[in-house]
Amino acid sequence: MSNKVITISREFGSGGRTIAREVADRLGYNFYDKALVERIAAESGYSKDFVERRGEDATSTSSFLFNLSRSGSGGYDGISGTSDKLYVISHNIIKKLPEEGPCVIVGRCSDYILKDYEDSLHVFIYADMKFKADRIVKLYGEMDDAPEKRLDEKDKKRKVYYKNFTGRIWGMSENYDVCLNSGKLGIDSCVDIIVELAQR
Amino acid sequence: MSNKVITISREFGSGGRTIAREVADRLGYNFYDKALVERIAAESGYSKDFVERRGEDATSTSSFLFNLSRSGSGGYDGISGTSDKLYVISHNIIKKLPEEGPCVIVGRCSDYILKDYEDSLHVFIYADMKFKADRIVKLYGEMDDAPEKRLDEKDKKRKVYYKNFTGRIWGMSENYDVCLNSGKLGIDSCVDIIVELAQR
Repeated sequence: MSNKVITISREFGSGGRTIAREVADRLGYNFYDKALVERIAAESGYSKDFVERRGEDATSTSSFLFNLSRSGSGGYDGISGTSDKLYVISHNIIKKLPEEGPCVIVGRCSDYILKDYEDSLHVFIYADMKFKADRIVKLYGEMDDAPEKRLDEKDKKRKVYYKNFTGRIWGMSENYDVCLNSGKLGIDSCVDIIVELAQR
Repeated sequence: MSNKVITISREFGSGGRTIAREVADRLGYNFYDKALVERIAAESGYSKDFVERRGEDATSTSSFLFNLSRSGSGGYDGISGTSDKLYVISHNIIKKLPEEGPCVIVGRCSDYILKDYEDSLHVFIYADMKFKADRIVKLYGEMDDAPEKRLDEKDKKRKVYYKNFTGRIWGMSENYDVCLNSGKLGIDSCVDIIVELAQR
């Protein structure tokens, strides 16, 4: 029997990462968020900070590599585009994570990378602007830019990143098995639903 | 306290209507599917068959009416476009359904029409092509056209209809509170999740 994998994609500020951590805790699954960043950093030679910054919201400079990674050949020698390199490294790492045990993976196109992995549950977490704005101010404090502007910019970049590497529209329900509005349903309800579905 | 409303939008063949009926049964809510068609037929003077056929998959000929209905004035005198007339009639009926008691409403842009109604749960049900194709062949039998072609055509029309009257993208998670892949999760799981969320 294969190991269960839950991928959690999320809008910035929606609480998706918190939900993912709680789901992993409750199920006793491996949790790949910072741990994934560390691995990508180790394999790429870039710093963790750099990988985090360039991770999910920097656009690619090479569609050649995009095609390579889609065809599964996976090599990245001789290609420019730092984002491309990072994508392929993280693609190759994510592909093998299920071998290490049941797990929850946050973002980084993991829904797309593991779309053909059978024992999977692909989740998208999103929320209305007010919920997200209140949440990031509470978590990260006030900044020069309005929270709405920060949210818009961050998610716009994620959208472009996702489209670039997967060819799909970020947030379209058909890419996921379940999409949950954490602002409307509440963080706890989202955790309960995902845990229950994983246990069925 | 206001009456709870659940709207269920669905891809053709996904089992969304079956799920909606089961949810209404389990919760003891009013169920508006055929009953809504009958009302629209009665108010418009068109036959039930005609309303059903032209209901969710015919495009509008008038953007004027679209603006009218969005601004809430709701009249439809003197406007051409049968779909437009039907949309405005159904818009006005759907707006008032919550007054009659807690209910489940299937399709017809009810998610959009009741988007500002507070005690609501907006659901989208979808599935992979194989699940839907097998399902419609089982339910409606073989036809001249391949089931995949029938599914594609039907949903393409629904998409255009929805976009035309709401300005939104059909199936984008942000339009709903919860989106469920019935092919992956199973019809029963979808019913359970919706019932549980309604009861919270």
